[in-house]
Amino acid sequence: MKFTCSQAALLRAVNTCIKAVSVRTTIPILKGILIKVEDGRATLTSSDLNMSIETSFDVQNYVNGSSVVSAKLLGDIVRKLPNSLINIDTEKEYGKLSINCLGSDFSIVSLPADEFPLVGGVNSKDFFELDKADFKDIINKSVFSASIDEKKGILTGCLFNIKGGTMEAVALDGFRMAIVRKEIGSDKEKRFIIPANILSEIYKILNEDEGSDQISVLFEEKKAEFLTEDTRVIARLLEGEFIKYNDILPSSWNTRITVNREDMLSSIERASLFAKEGKNNLIKIKVGKDTLDIESRSEEGNVNEKVGADVEGEELLIGFNSKYLIDVLKVISDEEVVFEMGSSVSSCLIKPVEGNDYTYLVLPVRISVS
Amino acid sequence: MKFTCSQAALLRAVNTCIKAVSVRTTIPILKGILIKVEDGRATLTSSDLNMSIETSFDVQNYVNGSSVVSAKLLGDIVRKLPNSLINIDTEKEYGKLSINCLGSDFSIVSLPADEFPLVGGVNSKDFFELDKADFKDIINKSVFSASIDEKKGILTGCLFNIKGGTMEAVALDGFRMAIVRKEIGSDKEKRFIIPANILSEIYKILNEDEGSDQISVLFEEKKAEFLTEDTRVIARLLEGEFIKYNDILPSSWNTRITVNREDMLSSIERASLFAKEGKNNLIKIKVGKDTLDIESRSEEGNVNEKVGADVEGEELLIGFNSKYLIDVLKVISDEEVVFEMGSSVSSCLIKPVEGNDYTYLVLPVRISVS
Repeated sequence: MKFTCSQAALLRAVNTCIKAVSVRTTIPILKGILIKVEDGRATLTSSDLNMSIETSFDVQNYVNGSSVVSAKLLGDIVRKLPNSLINIDTEKEYGKLSINCLGSDFSIVSLPADEFPLVGGVNSKDFFELDKADFKDIINKSVFSASIDEKKGILTGCLFNIKGGTMEAVALDGFRMAIVRKEIGSDKEKRFIIPANILSEIYKILNEDEGSDQISVLFEEKKAEFLTEDTRVIARLLEGEFIKYNDILPSSWNTRITVNREDMLSSIERASLFAKEGKNNLIKIKVGKDTLDIESRSEEGNVNEKVGADVEGEELLIGFNSKYLIDVLKVISDEEVVFEMGSSVSSCLIKPVEGNDYTYLVLPVRISVS
Repeated sequence: MKFTCSQAALLRAVNTCIKAVSVRTTIPILKGILIKVEDGRATLTSSDLNMSIETSFDVQNYVNGSSVVSAKLLGDIVRKLPNSLINIDTEKEYGKLSINCLGSDFSIVSLPADEFPLVGGVNSKDFFELDKADFKDIINKSVFSASIDEKKGILTGCLFNIKGGTMEAVALDGFRMAIVRKEIGSDKEKRFIIPANILSEIYKILNEDEGSDQISVLFEEKKAEFLTEDTRVIARLLEGEFIKYNDILPSSWNTRITVNREDMLSSIERASLFAKEGKNNLIKIKVGKDTLDIESRSEEGNVNEKVGADVEGEELLIGFNSKYLIDVLKVISDEEVVFEMGSSVSSCLIKPVEGNDYTYLVLPVRISVS
């Protein structure tokens, strides 16, 4: 194998691929990146068995072939090289890949390409076209609500439910839930559950991708493929029954608050200074006639934050894990936001003033009313 | 105690003072900041017994008094408040300091001010005026060469030797040495040794200080005071005999190299990718007729970097801990730099092409010439 390319092209590809390289793996070759050259294109592939990433770019002076080298080392080297032409060659020394750029000559250990476990792409006519910005937005607004506890099985995933021209993403961890909706220009139907950690990596890849505004998503029974101009991510899907999330949404409220999102966020963040991890980050919100009093206390002191709000219905004292509210208020961009509450022990909904682009549910923390 | 000030003024003062607050201390009050109001000025003081920082700013609506509160908590709160007017008051609740800003009301535990150990300023006519930029530059170019090993005593300090209109700073750790010189407009004489970690904090304070371009340095037998417009740092000085550093400078060379500093730095940084900590970050430099070959190798591979250079004298193969060369090449700003070497086992000097603004000495690593 042999090729010449720009440092920028190789660096972009390595930075993309490295997102699927497992730092801790018992399979040494998975710490590597597979480099394959075929007919003027170099393709870099990485995999952690749950997700694999392939990305390619044009090369010159090439000889077809393939090789596997340490992802970390390749990344460290390419990152430090100047933006000039890089020559890659496996034919100079047996079992080594040489990297040459101006006065720099590297020679690094390579492994046989045929030992690299290939996941294989998705061969299917079952696919969608999605707007890249829409898909990024839906990931950003939902993925944080999934469970990060591997023992929680299906809750570590994010459900995508595509139906009647709408894409709905749902993630929940037992304490809070995100439901995010987007109109998409397709009348296809599809339902799949994808691990939230893979979704986060896809978000990063799309964020760095400079290609077209559209991506394609292809499906097989147990995997999905996310395709941009130069890159494809193949993700293992989660199997099993997702929670019947519509059943846990409260159907009525007794207290409805409309509040400026940024004011609310800043006040909760300040109140959190006294809300310690060990105590569930507890803050109390006292809903008055036209203000919210947000309070928290610790041995070090206490804080009261007053936020003006438009309150309908009953006054209420309710406790929350401040982190769950902060997570939600940070990803929304609306100027105003609505909180709907039933009582101090029933779940709270956070919704837009108009429309139904998102519905967040947060369970309250039981507090002793003193 | 009571006062009103802008969030910006209080935040600036807290950020300055926090640099002397010990995170790990057995004396709880040293985790605090002393706030003292007197005649329209608030002064914040912190101390770790080796260094104390005092900084002040104008206040309104004040009542004289003083109080001590947690530095971390105060910083966290003020950082999160909007840039508006802040009211501080200790008279609302006994043993508490209240912080009010728009809709935010904080009340935090305070400690009695008289328990705070005051170091006291330096009362002396023994002082210098220094250009702030010059002093920052001299710190930046020398302080990294001091030992970070507390057992090394005097080597954890930086010697300042002021004589004949020149300020010379010297730091060494047994493997490398920095000597940095500046012309200063003063014919006073002074010699003092200041702990390198305190010097690093002074650098940060001067870097953030927006006051005048000059600072004053005042001396007593065992301490020095560094004075800017609003801030003073009182530092304990190190006592004892400093190493006779001029005696260890080699007086002649057999190989003299003039090289582009940035090219040399990039090449050494790339060569360092294979130079592992456990192996002293070993790189080998082969000095040829008009090139340097910089090499390093590990089990993962090897690298050869070719750098064009102007070489006088003998060819040479010499090994270095790459970190020591990188540290030096990073702080210098000259386009070209000179290396003077005696042999593969004698110390190497790094100097400017012209003048004597700096002299760095780096010991080589003994290598087996194979």
